[in-house]
Amino acid sequence: MPCQNFDYSYNFNNNSGEDYRKKIAIVGGGNWGSAIACVVGKTVKAQDEVFQPIVSIWCRDSRKPGDLSPSIAETINSTHENPKYLPGRRIPDNVVATSSLLEACQSAHILILVVPHQGIPQICDELRGKLQKGAHAISLTKGISSSCENGEIKMQLISEDIERALGVQCSVLMGANLAGEVADGKFCEATIGCKSLKNGEELKKVFDTPNFRIRVTTDYEAVELCGALKNIVACAAGFADGLGWAYNVKSAIIRLGLLETKKFVEHFYPSSVGHTYFESCGVADLITTCYGGRNRKVAEAFIKSDKPLRVIEQELLKGQSAQGPPTAQDVYEMLEINEISEKFPIFASVHKVFTGHHGEQELYDSLRNHPEYD
Amino acid sequence: MPCQNFDYSYNFNNNSGEDYRKKIAIVGGGNWGSAIACVVGKTVKAQDEVFQPIVSIWCRDSRKPGDLSPSIAETINSTHENPKYLPGRRIPDNVVATSSLLEACQSAHILILVVPHQGIPQICDELRGKLQKGAHAISLTKGISSSCENGEIKMQLISEDIERALGVQCSVLMGANLAGEVADGKFCEATIGCKSLKNGEELKKVFDTPNFRIRVTTDYEAVELCGALKNIVACAAGFADGLGWAYNVKSAIIRLGLLETKKFVEHFYPSSVGHTYFESCGVADLITTCYGGRNRKVAEAFIKSDKPLRVIEQELLKGQSAQGPPTAQDVYEMLEINEISEKFPIFASVHKVFTGHHGEQELYDSLRNHPEYD
Repeated sequence: MPCQNFDYSYNFNNNSGEDYRKKIAIVGGGNWGSAIACVVGKTVKAQDEVFQPIVSIWCRDSRKPGDLSPSIAETINSTHENPKYLPGRRIPDNVVATSSLLEACQSAHILILVVPHQGIPQICDELRGKLQKGAHAISLTKGISSSCENGEIKMQLISEDIERALGVQCSVLMGANLAGEVADGKFCEATIGCKSLKNGEELKKVFDTPNFRIRVTTDYEAVELCGALKNIVACAAGFADGLGWAYNVKSAIIRLGLLETKKFVEHFYPSSVGHTYFESCGVADLITTCYGGRNRKVAEAFIKSDKPLRVIEQELLKGQSAQGPPTAQDVYEMLEINEISEKFPIFASVHKVFTGHHGEQELYDSLRNHPEYD
Repeated sequence: MPCQNFDYSYNFNNNSGEDYRKKIAIVGGGNWGSAIACVVGKTVKAQDEVFQPIVSIWCRDSRKPGDLSPSIAETINSTHENPKYLPGRRIPDNVVATSSLLEACQSAHILILVVPHQGIPQICDELRGKLQKGAHAISLTKGISSSCENGEIKMQLISEDIERALGVQCSVLMGANLAGEVADGKFCEATIGCKSLKNGEELKKVFDTPNFRIRVTTDYEAVELCGALKNIVACAAGFADGLGWAYNVKSAIIRLGLLETKKFVEHFYPSSVGHTYFESCGVADLITTCYGGRNRKVAEAFIKSDKPLRVIEQELLKGQSAQGPPTAQDVYEMLEINEISEKFPIFASVHKVFTGHHGEQELYDSLRNHPEYD
């Protein structure tokens, strides 16, 4: 489906007759992927001298065999809406969805990855060698990774997994962005963390609008880890809400959680700089997530009921998952392997509460006796 | 009234027959003064080898002539409660109230000042030369001050006003502490900013409990300004709430407000250090105040109605005032004198909204076009 209201008369071909403008593909049509498509659809249309105006978006076909209802991709193309994950928001006409990963991404110059952590290896396997030469990627996925080298388990970033698997440079975008508010065009901010400022500045063009303000930094490890770890802190905030703890306690959780994040980054990436915590990916995202995010909501419900986590996720998130509990588990394993758990009592407590190894009093005590007070 | 359950048989006298233990006086029996009396009453009682167990608290006698009802001080002494400003919380028996400033503070070693900014000059005038030799003070008052030197108006701290007026060193205590929660003994934190670590550590003994955790820093200018300026940011957050703006916007206000605070401190006190914003007085206090404080509440009501500020304060705060609007005015004047207003759009906007020189759209635009995005 061609982009409407677009002037195709201009010649965007280079000497060999190919369109010299960059092709952008979004991988993932969930809540956040659909919201970011609302932004990117508009920015690329307004910069048609730089970017190809059609943005493709890959949406997994989650229909069961025999289900004859339209796929998510088909629904987006016919209604310009994703009623399952982002109901009520119009996705721009120049965003074209497909259930074929290759169709969406073949020859892309810029790949925007917005899928759960677990899906990344398979996606990268399928896309290896299929992108445009000189392509680069940006990950909006939250979580942490690890690798085993010479029998030793080591901290790794998801963006590094993507770089290895695809052989392209991978930046990250994190920030205080609740998907619905971004899709509605309400004012918000985000941080791009990149290795190369050239890629960072190009990506800024893809995302920055008068209402979605982007700042770029090369402190990409801290940016990515802020995005991942804030979901653990939000779970602690959700427990506090569920237990009826006060404003002061919640603010202390957010502050101490930010300090644990900082300490975690400094432990694994000592070259990281301090200012990143003042960026949108730092303190702002943490506050948004601890007040308005799905992890807070799930953790609050979990501590108030006897239901298993997956039942609560099913009830509250309509099939989407909360990233906080698996990230807490990954982080806890990393802390234990490195024998530094006692320096991170909030991170450790969240994992212990979710796995039934910790109660309300221990959580409270882990705050009151936090090593920050030593 | 003597302290109950206290062993008076032990000899705390020095060679000249005087009690060598330090006397503590609290100046101000409002909401926060009464709450802090709940903490200090307990800590000094538990450290009777260091501190005199009776803590005196001065409460202004606000009765009109002919009013025969008991004064606040009389009520506190007979009921151990301050029903006007901190209803429902028991003030410890060893806190003794008086309407006489001199009676409360004569020969005090440690003076805790918890009064509105406006009341400080008169109080200091009355107390000059009346404290114990070697005494020091701590201010819990939020606001900023200015002085005129050689015809030039200069930024000054309230703690500096107190130091000049009383001739004693003055520390500050700021942090994420809603008064009711502190009085209830719920977990919270605070930061002491001091010039001398000796005084800071002594003050830590006065305030620190297992549930009220204190950290000490010598970056006292930043600590004090965090306490004052957060009330302006909270007003911006209140406007955002009143206008129905989203989570992302509110988080951006808090983040940008924290950065304006940092920039303000760096402009006027360039020797200040960066870590203070991660202390309770920084990010934590800001969050508490932007979600649960009186300035947020007053600003929300102000922008939703046509009522003048003083009517809203009367209706919502029962005669207490919000410190945000006068602080915004003081700060705005300081920014204008120094010709740096455009670097602080949130601080400036708050003042302009309260004085009718700014509307909703200008406030929104001041966020979207914040110099942080330059």
